[in-house]
Amino acid sequence: MTANSTVRNILFIMCDQLRRDYLGCYGHPRIRTPHIDALAGRGTRFTRCYVQAPVCGPSRMSTYTGRYVASHGATWNFVPLSVETPTLGDYLQKAGLRTAVVGKTHVVPNLGGMARLNIDPASAQGARLAQGGFEPYARHDGVITDAWLKRKPNAYNDYLRKSGYDAVNAWHEFAASGVDETGRVQSAWKLRNSRLKARVEERHSETAWSTDRAMDFIREQGDNPWCLHLSYIKPHWPYIAPAPYHDMYSEKDVAAPMRVDAEKVDAHPVYQAFRDHAESRAFSRNEVRNSVIPSYMGLISQVDDHIGRLTRFLEDAGRLKDTLIVFTSDHGDLLGDHWLGEKEMFYEPSVGVPLIMVDPSASKGGTWIHPSWKRSIYSLLSSTRLGSLKTISGWKASLSCRGCCGDAPPLREAAFSELDYAFYPARSALGLGPNEARAEMVCTERWKLILYAGFPPQLFDLRSDPAELRDLGRDPAFAPVRAELLERLTGWHAARRNRCHMADREVDAWLAHRTEPGGVEIGEW
Amino acid sequence: MTANSTVRNILFIMCDQLRRDYLGCYGHPRIRTPHIDALAGRGTRFTRCYVQAPVCGPSRMSTYTGRYVASHGATWNFVPLSVETPTLGDYLQKAGLRTAVVGKTHVVPNLGGMARLNIDPASAQGARLAQGGFEPYARHDGVITDAWLKRKPNAYNDYLRKSGYDAVNAWHEFAASGVDETGRVQSAWKLRNSRLKARVEERHSETAWSTDRAMDFIREQGDNPWCLHLSYIKPHWPYIAPAPYHDMYSEKDVAAPMRVDAEKVDAHPVYQAFRDHAESRAFSRNEVRNSVIPSYMGLISQVDDHIGRLTRFLEDAGRLKDTLIVFTSDHGDLLGDHWLGEKEMFYEPSVGVPLIMVDPSASKGGTWIHPSWKRSIYSLLSSTRLGSLKTISGWKASLSCRGCCGDAPPLREAAFSELDYAFYPARSALGLGPNEARAEMVCTERWKLILYAGFPPQLFDLRSDPAELRDLGRDPAFAPVRAELLERLTGWHAARRNRCHMADREVDAWLAHRTEPGGVEIGEW
Repeated sequence: MTANSTVRNILFIMCDQLRRDYLGCYGHPRIRTPHIDALAGRGTRFTRCYVQAPVCGPSRMSTYTGRYVASHGATWNFVPLSVETPTLGDYLQKAGLRTAVVGKTHVVPNLGGMARLNIDPASAQGARLAQGGFEPYARHDGVITDAWLKRKPNAYNDYLRKSGYDAVNAWHEFAASGVDETGRVQSAWKLRNSRLKARVEERHSETAWSTDRAMDFIREQGDNPWCLHLSYIKPHWPYIAPAPYHDMYSEKDVAAPMRVDAEKVDAHPVYQAFRDHAESRAFSRNEVRNSVIPSYMGLISQVDDHIGRLTRFLEDAGRLKDTLIVFTSDHGDLLGDHWLGEKEMFYEPSVGVPLIMVDPSASKGGTWIHPSWKRSIYSLLSSTRLGSLKTISGWKASLSCRGCCGDAPPLREAAFSELDYAFYPARSALGLGPNEARAEMVCTERWKLILYAGFPPQLFDLRSDPAELRDLGRDPAFAPVRAELLERLTGWHAARRNRCHMADREVDAWLAHRTEPGGVEIGEW
Repeated sequence: MTANSTVRNILFIMCDQLRRDYLGCYGHPRIRTPHIDALAGRGTRFTRCYVQAPVCGPSRMSTYTGRYVASHGATWNFVPLSVETPTLGDYLQKAGLRTAVVGKTHVVPNLGGMARLNIDPASAQGARLAQGGFEPYARHDGVITDAWLKRKPNAYNDYLRKSGYDAVNAWHEFAASGVDETGRVQSAWKLRNSRLKARVEERHSETAWSTDRAMDFIREQGDNPWCLHLSYIKPHWPYIAPAPYHDMYSEKDVAAPMRVDAEKVDAHPVYQAFRDHAESRAFSRNEVRNSVIPSYMGLISQVDDHIGRLTRFLEDAGRLKDTLIVFTSDHGDLLGDHWLGEKEMFYEPSVGVPLIMVDPSASKGGTWIHPSWKRSIYSLLSSTRLGSLKTISGWKASLSCRGCCGDAPPLREAAFSELDYAFYPARSALGLGPNEARAEMVCTERWKLILYAGFPPQLFDLRSDPAELRDLGRDPAFAPVRAELLERLTGWHAARRNRCHMADREVDAWLAHRTEPGGVEIGEW
């Protein structure tokens, strides 16, 4: 790698449900992630990257479209993405990069929109739209129930069946199941079974298979430029790891949960409703955490080993010198912190993600962003406006001068994120209609305000209370802080871009046109 | 008309730039509008209807799509409308109503979206999308410059040429021009020429032609159900009326402007920038008002006469008894009030419009809204949540139980409107970028707050100051009022629906599905 490197390819790695603090380079005291740590060492590690929504689908749609959730409208996992909205794939393919996905995207096409536009979902056009602009080199959206499998083929399930795993739903029965002490096959849907060894061989596991497919793609491309979205499904549930990762960690490696009994007293109604969810009740028990977290950590170390394998492969292929590597996650995992499971809520372990970028051309003093990737990369970068910059001093300038649409946005002072919880039992418990279950977060260097439609806000002082154990949302002493943050949120609402079908240069042209000779003469005497 | 009438058709009349208080039934002391007043007498007159944007394009797109501007994204006149967004035409055509437009829609299709979706703009599909769902029975978007005429055919211009008006741009040279005392042809682009008689014969004028086309359409339909959007271009500028309307009114009929010198002292920066526009400087002069306003009034009385003619036609054809009539406007006209011309600003003469509905089935105790028109009619109705109801007591219940998407929205307590002023000289004067020129209004029974991104707000007390002459936006005494209105605005932002590609019933189905046997089991031990 020389100072003259030119970036031609993008390897965009996304983990699923990987929380920010479960990597060595983000300070986890026990986990072993040497290869990801090495990426961070060579590149830039953003310490405070936030996702635009702490839920798979909307977070991913924000990354793929470069828009906030309120703009792309795919507010939850199975809410369709507009077929008219350009994605990362559109931008990059136009620029000559073959742009493909291995793994998960969660893109659900808007069949209603296709019908209105007379686009046959079975046509080449329809198929392209169904992929959100990515060529589905080896797509899947995670482990499947038997019912879903009947509706939709699944590349990884097919692979397992061809590799000798004999079951219709081989993914579930081998990769997501284990054998207990009595010799019975047990599904990892039950958290009690997370501690078991997955029935799949490591070399046939989701992570290994995805990495192999990534190498196939890169090999196939030769010297032709590409963007590969390598989208690992792990460490997302069902939490179960193949050998040797299933017992790499044990109870003694499980960090104490960030939770105090005081959180249950006079609790915020929405927080309380989420705490009543099955997964929250489960993860409130140490027995559950001790079964799940060692597997969760094993799955992360497994991803790390495959990233090491992939890095060596890139080096051997001569691709390290011309490939921008981005590593991130779509959201975190609460794992029992705050007496909660899953994600959704805006606590740091849920809404905070790792973000690492390795740019082989960075030694030239700046970081290369493919012009066509502006909007999408911007959605990553803009979600990091709090990003403390570890290594490359050129980043700041780079962020300022190469942002969205050719403009020069400054590094932002606040992060925003959105939640549509209409799809959760919490909504029923609170008696809310399908359009009343909304929440938004604004987070600055020090403060985090969460606004719930119809309920009081939550407020946390991240400086004095980094674990977010003390909700100041209803404390009269903090009314001025809340007012200031509310103003930021309102300013963000007011400034959100919605003029999506006209470029800024056209706006300027119209403004110039107003006074053009022979044009419309408004208000002339 | 009997109590057993069933509504089968919709006549949706929209004027362009007709301010609310320039009709007899809305209290104008001099104007003669007996036929529109008669509609109000038979139907429901909404006293405080507000448009979602005080600019033609975005206001119309809100009406046609049933969405606020932030949702449909067509924030100004020539900003394309998403091709994926269903419109009134989609809903009604699906329900078997032939849905057509005579006159203006201002729909600009998203050619970029069509390109992405491989839709040829010249195809039948492309043509349909270019019309926003309306069959273009006799569409035009208003008087045209010579340059525009070369790009796009124009039905009314063609008609004039066929009727013997000999000029390439016959619309401009005959219908929008007059002959001065020296015998010279003068364009009504210049406000000094508004006082002249238009060179077109009344029976060939825009308003007469549009009414004739409306009758043709209705006649053609016979007993088949229809929705006709009769979209008069008048009284929009160029302000010039044919005989006998050109001298029906004179200076003595011109109401005194609502403006005081105090408005110029310590003026709000955005207001000041709009006051510096050419049209504002012009309308600040009484000479201009006295030339323009008599013609403006004449054009309104002309529309009124044709509505009378159309009403008689409907009666003769037996259509009055089964046709819902809606009469409104896309925004108003400042005409020198507050030292301003045009619209854009959120003063009542600009953002307030008339709305009258005549429902022949209303005597049954309620008002009929075609189920397929829910979203669009709702955009009209929801913009009237302040509507005092004049005649039909059933309206309130009707509004509550037949609103958008089958829900039961209550009558609202506040109206909201939006402005993207990136396209105006005011933006340049203020040194703003193309995405920084934003304003929003929230208006309650008593108060109107206008928020400008990057500037202080404006506040008016409509109870003590109905003419909006005293801006309380920076008065410390009114900080609590502003805070309360800001909270409403924030609540509206947070609650704006953006999950547009999934119906509420599907959301409920997903919520039910979560706990379905054999489904995904999250967080089970």
